[in-house]
Amino acid sequence: MTYCLGILVNDGLVLAADSRTNAGVDQIALVKKLSIFDGMDDRLICLMSAGNLATTQSVTTLLEQSLGTGAPNDIYSVGTMFDVARIVGDTLRSEVAREADYVKPFGSPDGSFIVAGQIKGRNHRLFQIYSAGNFIEATQDTPFLQIGETKYGKPILDRVINHEVDLDSACKCALLSMDATMRSNLSVAPPVHVLRYESGSLSAHDHRRINENDPYFQQIRDAYSQGLRALFDKIPNPTWDAE
Amino acid sequence: MTYCLGILVNDGLVLAADSRTNAGVDQIALVKKLSIFDGMDDRLICLMSAGNLATTQSVTTLLEQSLGTGAPNDIYSVGTMFDVARIVGDTLRSEVAREADYVKPFGSPDGSFIVAGQIKGRNHRLFQIYSAGNFIEATQDTPFLQIGETKYGKPILDRVINHEVDLDSACKCALLSMDATMRSNLSVAPPVHVLRYESGSLSAHDHRRINENDPYFQQIRDAYSQGLRALFDKIPNPTWDAE
Repeated sequence: MTYCLGILVNDGLVLAADSRTNAGVDQIALVKKLSIFDGMDDRLICLMSAGNLATTQSVTTLLEQSLGTGAPNDIYSVGTMFDVARIVGDTLRSEVAREADYVKPFGSPDGSFIVAGQIKGRNHRLFQIYSAGNFIEATQDTPFLQIGETKYGKPILDRVINHEVDLDSACKCALLSMDATMRSNLSVAPPVHVLRYESGSLSAHDHRRINENDPYFQQIRDAYSQGLRALFDKIPNPTWDAE
Repeated sequence: MTYCLGILVNDGLVLAADSRTNAGVDQIALVKKLSIFDGMDDRLICLMSAGNLATTQSVTTLLEQSLGTGAPNDIYSVGTMFDVARIVGDTLRSEVAREADYVKPFGSPDGSFIVAGQIKGRNHRLFQIYSAGNFIEATQDTPFLQIGETKYGKPILDRVINHEVDLDSACKCALLSMDATMRSNLSVAPPVHVLRYESGSLSAHDHRRINENDPYFQQIRDAYSQGLRALFDKIPNPTWDAE
């Protein structure tokens, strides 16, 4: 299982992905569920994926192979993040169509993506691509998008995230949402990849791979867990004789 | 959508069910998702249901019609809660089999139940009945069972509930779990029916129908929401320069 989360706030983007089975030597291999395309000075593009790994890896690889070629699916040559999202959607659509008849006897060929990034001179943007290839965009009123095992981690987001939240708080909330998911579903597990993207920077510098024993992650997990227990204990018990 | 929750602790049971579409004049009609069978002095039996309403209502009605008749599906005449769970499972199994071919073109005929209660001189017990008619029982290590829209409300249960928790705390936690679910899924809604059952009492006296504007429910929702925000703000932000 997978849990990927994208948050869109005024100041930028926060992306987080678990990575239960990942191990590799270079950055792209290390972050299979979070792929960062930072080979151009004028843009930063990130993909996160969930679902059938063969499908989503094929999509990501096809896009990688076309980088800088000027081909119709070259995400380095288009003018807007909307165009990037459309390329990812079309590529996913055609890969699912190519594989469906052969894969379905064994399981679902479906996949989904979160596409996030910024092109110089334009706003940072966040999209969710469905397996059908269509997609939606995050807005001020819908400031986060999730794929994979989304429900356990949603309550904390519903309570905390809005478009005005600062980037550090959004990171903290993303990690707590990831923690809630990992506690309730053992198949979502660290290391967690987190990207804190400041609008205008066009840089993936603030990217971290967070292990289970990462001191900060442990600190906020413990603080949240203990604080929540204390909060629960402080809330008065029901008064059953009121009626 | 439905969310039903049963909690098994040393001191007894807590049952909670939402009821978006319910309206009626007598107790059984009011609590469609929580049916209480308290017509015998030697036992208290409760059912909660999720899934296809035609299926689950048929099951409940068939059981009601057989009460006290001594028929094989008379839950008043069997000796253990395990026997009650088996009757519910067998009835559900045969109802699904009866309806499946006709209903499937329009949707799923499946349903599920939580069965809870106590028979005099025996332990209070809690079961979850699958649509296939088989079932599992809550234990000291698995002290809560959920049916319907289960995920949003699970993190708070995972953090708080264990077999030693007192009944009032279990009630409070059940309401917070219900609140988390209602915040994240608009199709789960009040009134919430809650039964606080003290082991040995064989009584459904502590049963409440909690509306959205119930003062206690509002109080704990607000206190939890504000406390959680304060807790979130208190947790330190990530330090991105640590690596």
